[in-house]
Amino acid sequence: MISGIVYIVGAGPGDPGLITVKGVECLRRADVIIYDRLVSPHLLDYAPFQAERIYVGKASSDHILSQKETNRLLVERARQGKTVVRLKGGDPFVFGRGGEEALALVEACIPFEVVPGVTSAIAAPAYAGIPVTHRGVARSFAVFSGHRTEGETRGGGDAETAAVSSQPSAVSRPLSAISRQPSADTLGSERGPWTVERETQIFLMGMENLGSIVASLLEEGYSSETPVALVRWGTTPQQETVVGTLGDIVERGRGVHPPAVLVVGQVVSLRERLKWFEDRPLFGKRILVTRSREQASKLSCLLAEQGAEPIDFPVIQILPMEDDTPLDEALAHPHDWVIFTSANGVKAVWDRLQAAGRDARAFAGVRLCAIGPATAAELASHGLHADFVPAEYVAEAIVAGIGDVAGQRIMLPRADIAQEFLA
Amino acid sequence: MISGIVYIVGAGPGDPGLITVKGVECLRRADVIIYDRLVSPHLLDYAPFQAERIYVGKASSDHILSQKETNRLLVERARQGKTVVRLKGGDPFVFGRGGEEALALVEACIPFEVVPGVTSAIAAPAYAGIPVTHRGVARSFAVFSGHRTEGETRGGGDAETAAVSSQPSAVSRPLSAISRQPSADTLGSERGPWTVERETQIFLMGMENLGSIVASLLEEGYSSETPVALVRWGTTPQQETVVGTLGDIVERGRGVHPPAVLVVGQVVSLRERLKWFEDRPLFGKRILVTRSREQASKLSCLLAEQGAEPIDFPVIQILPMEDDTPLDEALAHPHDWVIFTSANGVKAVWDRLQAAGRDARAFAGVRLCAIGPATAAELASHGLHADFVPAEYVAEAIVAGIGDVAGQRIMLPRADIAQEFLA
Repeated sequence: MISGIVYIVGAGPGDPGLITVKGVECLRRADVIIYDRLVSPHLLDYAPFQAERIYVGKASSDHILSQKETNRLLVERARQGKTVVRLKGGDPFVFGRGGEEALALVEACIPFEVVPGVTSAIAAPAYAGIPVTHRGVARSFAVFSGHRTEGETRGGGDAETAAVSSQPSAVSRPLSAISRQPSADTLGSERGPWTVERETQIFLMGMENLGSIVASLLEEGYSSETPVALVRWGTTPQQETVVGTLGDIVERGRGVHPPAVLVVGQVVSLRERLKWFEDRPLFGKRILVTRSREQASKLSCLLAEQGAEPIDFPVIQILPMEDDTPLDEALAHPHDWVIFTSANGVKAVWDRLQAAGRDARAFAGVRLCAIGPATAAELASHGLHADFVPAEYVAEAIVAGIGDVAGQRIMLPRADIAQEFLA
Repeated sequence: MISGIVYIVGAGPGDPGLITVKGVECLRRADVIIYDRLVSPHLLDYAPFQAERIYVGKASSDHILSQKETNRLLVERARQGKTVVRLKGGDPFVFGRGGEEALALVEACIPFEVVPGVTSAIAAPAYAGIPVTHRGVARSFAVFSGHRTEGETRGGGDAETAAVSSQPSAVSRPLSAISRQPSADTLGSERGPWTVERETQIFLMGMENLGSIVASLLEEGYSSETPVALVRWGTTPQQETVVGTLGDIVERGRGVHPPAVLVVGQVVSLRERLKWFEDRPLFGKRILVTRSREQASKLSCLLAEQGAEPIDFPVIQILPMEDDTPLDEALAHPHDWVIFTSANGVKAVWDRLQAAGRDARAFAGVRLCAIGPATAAELASHGLHADFVPAEYVAEAIVAGIGDVAGQRIMLPRADIAQEFLA
């Protein structure tokens, strides 16, 4: 059997719009999706309905499957000839252990591709109004994992790790900033005074060790006045930003729970002017959208664009009729007019026509009316041009505009009539 | 007049598939696109045909417009009420000066949004088979700009900069790695020997200063054996990777021209096993696709998936007929059969039907034949179900399968017949 392929895909930082086009294409052709925590559930909707969806967890303390088991699962599903998408939060190679999974696939001779993603290390600050680099403020940035890696908390090194776990350097991060004071000879050639703040420091998954990260930065010579931001649920409608300094962020950050990105450096002070995301008119508002699920998405998108968190809460559901006989019989007879009062009506009629092996030619000699442009567009998608669309999109306007229909046979497929049939 | 809006969009690292979904949405509704060098030209195709496209350059030595002029342009177009997309290579906040542009917009009271992108700092290494972090190998990464910033090469500080420009620290980068030797007390709590290589160092736009970057790293105590990779045109079909060590990369990298990403650290050694992108079967092959432009894209996509660089070179062009009269006349008469031998034929017929204010009902009482599934699918998109599709997709099979048509009127709209009309 020919082996399948594994796409190791970065899902981006949280905003489902920040997945890549290539990532979406992979999801569209997936047989299996193996996904982590922090992956937006909206992204799974890109995959075919019948695709297998496997959740493997992945918070620091919530591994549903161990890394080894996940690797095995990838290999096993690919060996079944399946197209597998390994969907990981952010970018797969930024603390995502994508490299380990890729190595497991190489060993098993399974082809794979990597689809990089937007990392929350850069995007969460960006949505909080903080550019990780900025001319004259920060000329580089470094990204650290704020929680211990598996190897440090588990296995043979446990005792040793436990012994030092309260010390700052037990977190994975501080290596870069160690002994950061520049020597005199390198300083000489710099223009303007050198400060440690000129490199932005970013910590992912750092909430559990916030205290020790801050302590280690202070120890390394960072001023307690250094601006700091915690961005929780960055790039999502739940985004929350707490700003402070190295001196007070531990206090201010109390109550901020993971996931959060910690940004340290002068760039944080740009937020005051650049916080575009949280300044949008509907930011922080949760809005219930009660249309049927199929119809809600356009309205929800418009609301989300203004910063709201739309919550689909359909109180209407469009169902196929339990008994198709009345509609089928109606369609079997000739009519002078068919009046469509909703796009759903067009869909329902089209479904029954198709079920009878018929197509748009079934309306030969029939005049078609659509109550408005959305209904007309639905007709057009089936090759049918509405002969009449009233200027005002209400039933009265149809009656007024359709002309003399005395003695004519008129068909009126309506969703609410269908409901009456059911009632 | 209501002000427009500016979307500051990251175009991603080069592979046009690595733009975000949100970035594409912004392009689709753009009135104006202001774009840089290193932005894939394919991305501009997402924008409406009539959108204004303004190139503002941006290599270290090739600024078509100065930053100030670009800022002014953004403000001016937005003030005209336009939807402006500022399309920048990679991520707009990673040395993209997106922050400066955003500040200019804030000052002018123009609403803006930032759409982060996949940065080449992470994606170019990923496509070269190098994860920027990897458990046990690199626990963090830092990203630097390898070329001097404008402020350092221009303006009042010129003389000073010139005086030190041959020294390593005149490049923007070395700050982070300065005096990187750990002190004994921080070392104590680490498991295993600490090495500078545990942080991956990434330099964007570093080719011009490769010598001084390497010299400064060696000076800071990096071993000359440290693995190093140069990834040129990362994530594109022209990707080229040169691997070496800090000791020999200057020699090996001779002949590598910008744009290239420099990666320094032990993670580079993972490339040997993980270089999936360059290992694809057609990688490095340029393939001419001679189909008509409208039809080439599917084949081109399949080739690109296998690593090839497809070059659209249409030698066929499907044109509307110069004289529609024969087709219009044919459509005005009744037929027993209409035989479609290509999707293009269906499109041409549909266009003429629509021009006459007709729709799928025009084929009432006519039987429809499609030569194959693509042609049948085109019919279906107009609400028409092909009554006959031969098992073999050739003209002979139609004749064999269509049954007795003696005395019947048959219409055969074909692209090559149209061409005969023209000849």
